Amino acid sequence: MQISALTTDFYELTMMQGYFLNKHNPNVVFDMFYRTNPFEGGYVIFAGLHELIDKLESLCFSEEDIAYLKSLGKFTPEFLSYLADYHFSGDLYAMEEGTVVFPGEPLLRIHTSLIEAQLIEGLLLNTINFQSLIATKASRMLLASKQGLLMEFGLRRAQGSDGALSASRAAFIGGCQVTSNTLAGKEYNIPVAGTMAHSWIMSFQSELESFRAYANLYPDNTVLLIDTYDTLGSGIDNAIIVGLEQKQKGKKIGVRIDSGDLSYLPRVIRKRLDAAGLEDATIVVSNDLTEAIVQTLVLDGVPIDSWGIGTHLVTGGSQSSLNGVYKLAAKEGDDGHFIPTMKISNSFEKTTNPGIKQVYRFSDDDAGSIADLITLEKEKITPGRTFVFYHPFAEADFFEMQSSRYTHLKPLINKQMEGGKRIGKKPNLQEIQNYVQMELNTFHKSYLRQINPHIYKVSLSSKLKKLKMELLAAQRKKTKEGL
Amino acid sequence: MQISALTTDFYELTMMQGYFLNKHNPNVVFDMFYRTNPFEGGYVIFAGLHELIDKLESLCFSEEDIAYLKSLGKFTPEFLSYLADYHFSGDLYAMEEGTVVFPGEPLLRIHTSLIEAQLIEGLLLNTINFQSLIATKASRMLLASKQGLLMEFGLRRAQGSDGALSASRAAFIGGCQVTSNTLAGKEYNIPVAGTMAHSWIMSFQSELESFRAYANLYPDNTVLLIDTYDTLGSGIDNAIIVGLEQKQKGKKIGVRIDSGDLSYLPRVIRKRLDAAGLEDATIVVSNDLTEAIVQTLVLDGVPIDSWGIGTHLVTGGSQSSLNGVYKLAAKEGDDGHFIPTMKISNSFEKTTNPGIKQVYRFSDDDAGSIADLITLEKEKITPGRTFVFYHPFAEADFFEMQSSRYTHLKPLINKQMEGGKRIGKKPNLQEIQNYVQMELNTFHKSYLRQINPHIYKVSLSSKLKKLKMELLAAQRKKTKEGL
Repeated sequence: MQISALTTDFYELTMMQGYFLNKHNPNVVFDMFYRTNPFEGGYVIFAGLHELIDKLESLCFSEEDIAYLKSLGKFTPEFLSYLADYHFSGDLYAMEEGTVVFPGEPLLRIHTSLIEAQLIEGLLLNTINFQSLIATKASRMLLASKQGLLMEFGLRRAQGSDGALSASRAAFIGGCQVTSNTLAGKEYNIPVAGTMAHSWIMSFQSELESFRAYANLYPDNTVLLIDTYDTLGSGIDNAIIVGLEQKQKGKKIGVRIDSGDLSYLPRVIRKRLDAAGLEDATIVVSNDLTEAIVQTLVLDGVPIDSWGIGTHLVTGGSQSSLNGVYKLAAKEGDDGHFIPTMKISNSFEKTTNPGIKQVYRFSDDDAGSIADLITLEKEKITPGRTFVFYHPFAEADFFEMQSSRYTHLKPLINKQMEGGKRIGKKPNLQEIQNYVQMELNTFHKSYLRQINPHIYKVSLSSKLKKLKMELLAAQRKKTKEGL
Repeated sequence: MQISALTTDFYELTMMQGYFLNKHNPNVVFDMFYRTNPFEGGYVIFAGLHELIDKLESLCFSEEDIAYLKSLGKFTPEFLSYLADYHFSGDLYAMEEGTVVFPGEPLLRIHTSLIEAQLIEGLLLNTINFQSLIATKASRMLLASKQGLLMEFGLRRAQGSDGALSASRAAFIGGCQVTSNTLAGKEYNIPVAGTMAHSWIMSFQSELESFRAYANLYPDNTVLLIDTYDTLGSGIDNAIIVGLEQKQKGKKIGVRIDSGDLSYLPRVIRKRLDAAGLEDATIVVSNDLTEAIVQTLVLDGVPIDSWGIGTHLVTGGSQSSLNGVYKLAAKEGDDGHFIPTMKISNSFEKTTNPGIKQVYRFSDDDAGSIADLITLEKEKITPGRTFVFYHPFAEADFFEMQSSRYTHLKPLINKQMEGGKRIGKKPNLQEIQNYVQMELNTFHKSYLRQINPHIYKVSLSSKLKKLKMELLAAQRKKTKEGL
């Protein structure tokens, strides 16, 4: 996936030139994390990583790009020549794509020169924020449907053609099984599917003729759209006629309902199909579905076999962005050691966590995942010990995790790129989808509720907490002295 | 702008093959329109047209695309060979890009064969829905800011890299003046701009040093971010030091505030800047701005010179899609005449308007735009007459427009493509932006309110109304007879 390195905020380029000309280009570590869970839920599915790695591996400025930058009259020939030769050469550490993650914990770290780290900020956040948002939405819809068959139909309402493509990828990771976006099928090897549009039916002399024509052509994928004229009249009548004809040939049909009351219609249609001897005919519904609508219909026991989901799934609906940020965590001093840095905010809640960090997930064979602990990477974290978990910003809040309480602790962040190249094999999307489901299964369902979930605990280790307080005190002193 | 023709819903391809194999490929007319205004507002800015035309002009299936379709095992060699040679050859009629438009009126019509018309549905809706949504959002923000300077900073929160690019284009059309997305600068010739990030400041030994370094490097674009450590302490103090140094050199500065209370801080900072003799220093604010926040700050008289707007602008915020649809309006009969068609819905409100249509905007030299009338294209609409305006679905609701009430009537839909090629010159984005502002100026401000706007009237002509009722009666009769 080739992408222009101009996919960056302009201030990154002006800052980069500043560092370049001032010969101020230390190695740095940037963290990516997000602050609040979307959709009133309790978690996020971390997605977009391998797409990001693909993009970083091929990131460069074309001759045209350089000519454009030159035309702006703000960049020196030396800097432009540096950009012309640019390739991403950094290291990337991250959680596995598909991990269930929580606010405040570092999901991804970039270790590289300051100049490089700035360049990729926009691309990195764009990719991870959006795909994580949509994978999360899809996983919520799958939970709401009680592991139903979800079909992603979002192309026409997605945000740009690539917004549609990325959304199809992320929706599949989160648990959709098919997409309508043919290009996504090709690019990501996602199964493609579709039924028919009202225009198909309207283009024939009669509804029955249109159903027959479709069944003859696609006997193995006959899903008839029955609401063009009269769902409970001609629609279901004609579907049953064709369904019985197909049954003679040993084939099954499905019917799709795209309008009307989705709680009432499927019940009536199910009865009609069953009474006609078409017990194996499936019912597909679509029409502006949200996870709340899906959940209600499932809880009400409405007989629906699969769900065509578009707008809300591929855009996030009422929440259309994830608030992921990318912050400087450490920079290399003259002696080659990394110095922890943090961004102080007027509210301590928004003050970042300093230093090069790791995240450990504590779990128990019976209870599943219990809590995450953010530590400094160089801390030695070994099982069998008691750990103190400090609240990330409520200063006096902490608890102890006795060794008897957990059976496993697992570091979540792994090295994914070295010197600008991917380490190991790129997983396919089906593997990532499976990983998401495995991950979700490690959490008690109270953490996965659609609204008002149990809040999963993400804490700081004693050493990280201490470092944060020291840096805060030092900065306050510095500010007081007017530096 | 090359795009794969696989950017289509899979059911379009299965339907297309159905038409192809059944040799059922009449010429048809499809309309695009939307049903409800976004953001609780009263209008939409029609955007994306020229991007769509670019895409349609170059639309084709690559050899790889054909190989992928072949691998699915659902398509015949004849059909694949047809696709391999495919180029869009239809005619496109549309309103000018940047027109202020309203629910229910056709914005765009495609005249081509049924097969072609199906193929492009997803691409067309994707492009127009998203860009119109964002251009509308931008225009609302511009109105809220009372024509302030809007800077679009959305890359990191946009939906995919192309979602960001399309959003930058649409935001500019709607009234933003600059973008941070460098690629959008190159692709669309939008002015690029940016200030500095907290990481710039944190990478120096002191805030003052970082401000000086930036001012020396970019003396003509020095906007200092003052909230890294202490906005009203070191931040503004150091900015004033550097501002005064720059003043000596005949240069101006700006300051940017990205956190804290945006109603309080700019007032204090304005006073500090003025007291220091930096009356010409500008204040830029950013931080999750919505049009409601912008409007409140402007109405409160907070001294803000420009606005950095990201997330809500480029995604639509809480409303992340426009509900535009694409419906069959007419198809050619065996005698070469076009037969009007319409999609009947259980609710008359959602029943489409049949036939090949035009939209006339009635206006008055003093009052500006008064109302739009949807007519059949072949109706003779000439000034100086009285017209009856029928409510689009409330059957008994109508009013008369006397000739004394209006001074102009203007057909809004023009032919934009013929035989798959653009007619005339492609406007540049600045021209489209200007057109939007000119258009908005023709409407009384009550129609442009942020919420609870005056509803602009869109009506049906007598002939169109009559046709619709006749088709409805015919369909009801047909349904009754069980056809």
